[in-house]
Amino acid sequence: MTTALITGASSGIGASYARRLAARGYDLTLVARSTAKLEDLGAELSGLHGTRVDILTADLTDASQLGRVEERLRSGAAIDLLVNNAGDSLAGTFTTAQPADLDRLIKLNVTAPTLLASAAVGGMVERGQGAIINVGSVVGLLPEYFAGIYSATKSYILTFSQGLGAEVGPKGVYVQAVLPAATRTEIWDRAGVDVNSLQNVMEVDDLVDAALAGFDRKEAVTIPPLGELGLWEALEKARFGLAPGFSGTPAERYRTTV
Amino acid sequence: MTTALITGASSGIGASYARRLAARGYDLTLVARSTAKLEDLGAELSGLHGTRVDILTADLTDASQLGRVEERLRSGAAIDLLVNNAGDSLAGTFTTAQPADLDRLIKLNVTAPTLLASAAVGGMVERGQGAIINVGSVVGLLPEYFAGIYSATKSYILTFSQGLGAEVGPKGVYVQAVLPAATRTEIWDRAGVDVNSLQNVMEVDDLVDAALAGFDRKEAVTIPPLGELGLWEALEKARFGLAPGFSGTPAERYRTTV
Repeated sequence: MTTALITGASSGIGASYARRLAARGYDLTLVARSTAKLEDLGAELSGLHGTRVDILTADLTDASQLGRVEERLRSGAAIDLLVNNAGDSLAGTFTTAQPADLDRLIKLNVTAPTLLASAAVGGMVERGQGAIINVGSVVGLLPEYFAGIYSATKSYILTFSQGLGAEVGPKGVYVQAVLPAATRTEIWDRAGVDVNSLQNVMEVDDLVDAALAGFDRKEAVTIPPLGELGLWEALEKARFGLAPGFSGTPAERYRTTV
Repeated sequence: MTTALITGASSGIGASYARRLAARGYDLTLVARSTAKLEDLGAELSGLHGTRVDILTADLTDASQLGRVEERLRSGAAIDLLVNNAGDSLAGTFTTAQPADLDRLIKLNVTAPTLLASAAVGGMVERGQGAIINVGSVVGLLPEYFAGIYSATKSYILTFSQGLGAEVGPKGVYVQAVLPAATRTEIWDRAGVDVNSLQNVMEVDDLVDAALAGFDRKEAVTIPPLGELGLWEALEKARFGLAPGFSGTPAERYRTTV
């Protein structure tokens, strides 16, 4: 029997992961702020699939509550799959954002997935197996299209996933970054955007089914909404193309004064 | 007279920015943990250039000390240029990193520059002028070459800078991301690496002179060690090439089961 821990499991992408993984035979530890929603989902999945569901109510922006989830990953029964899905966005621009909201968003979108992966990965490396799914966003690559720091936090998630995959992949631990584009979740309400005003919005279950197809193929990065894989491959090729190009002396173009 | 606030100003890239900006006629507010080092540097620059230097001793991983620097930016005399230079790295891999160290690195490399930019940008937009320099790293683009979360924090910095530049550029505020590769600074000691074992290490003053040449040209991203600009332009072209490619239905390649 395999066990997954899913953050942000009470709705949207997290709840869809819970349903799909339960159908695949996983036992689940569900993490979110709302105990009631998690209990409803747990009852549904126990009834449908006989899933064993543990519930962990936690606000991941609170260090001590996050610490309890870390403790569960570090010291409890083995977790085979961590789904770092919890995340949020902010309404408005960077210029108008409140510092406390910026701080809180970094805690939720950056610090929490980092510390949860840290808590989970040691055991996975010891066991020589396990997987971590980090939910990012295509706007992590295109911040010019989405004001505020949400894009930057998702750029962190992609880069973190790629670096971690390079480190622990050879030790049998698989890391996947999933990059949705517009998806029909509650995040739009909180960002102050009417999702029905957007084009090309993906349904949550379609996103998760595609992400899991990428997971089954052990893709490092899965971008369900990207029709043409070559566009991503071109970006990766250009990225690795930079590596041999660095010199200890400044480029010629900067050695002349303006 | 123009005024710059520089974080991590006591050594390395920050101290070099202080010397170069003083020579250009800026007054300075210098921020770092060591009062003594800042006072020495301040005395040097007052003597050389008649620079007016304010010193702000602060550990930017401490919320209340960071708050004092935010307060200076938000409420004090106008700061025309914020240099978000303070940053650190961790020795070892992600698997072996201590959670408290990961949390602290995110606070220093991600939260602090974000909240300082937030504190500075409102006044800059109001005045219709000002600039923010964010010091990133080329490994933000190449995490496979540098274990741990340092790369991911620097990916955040690049993406944050690009997003912020798109937002406030039209309002007269210039945002520059500077991406060093290996540079001769103290960060290597703290990362547990002997800098003399590395090839192609750039001297700090060379890096800052090149970065300021890019600043004078109002480059959004300046990569002093990258000889061939075309490599960067190829990456940016590939990145923007993704934008029109997103669909509301999953890509064909994910619609078949394995």
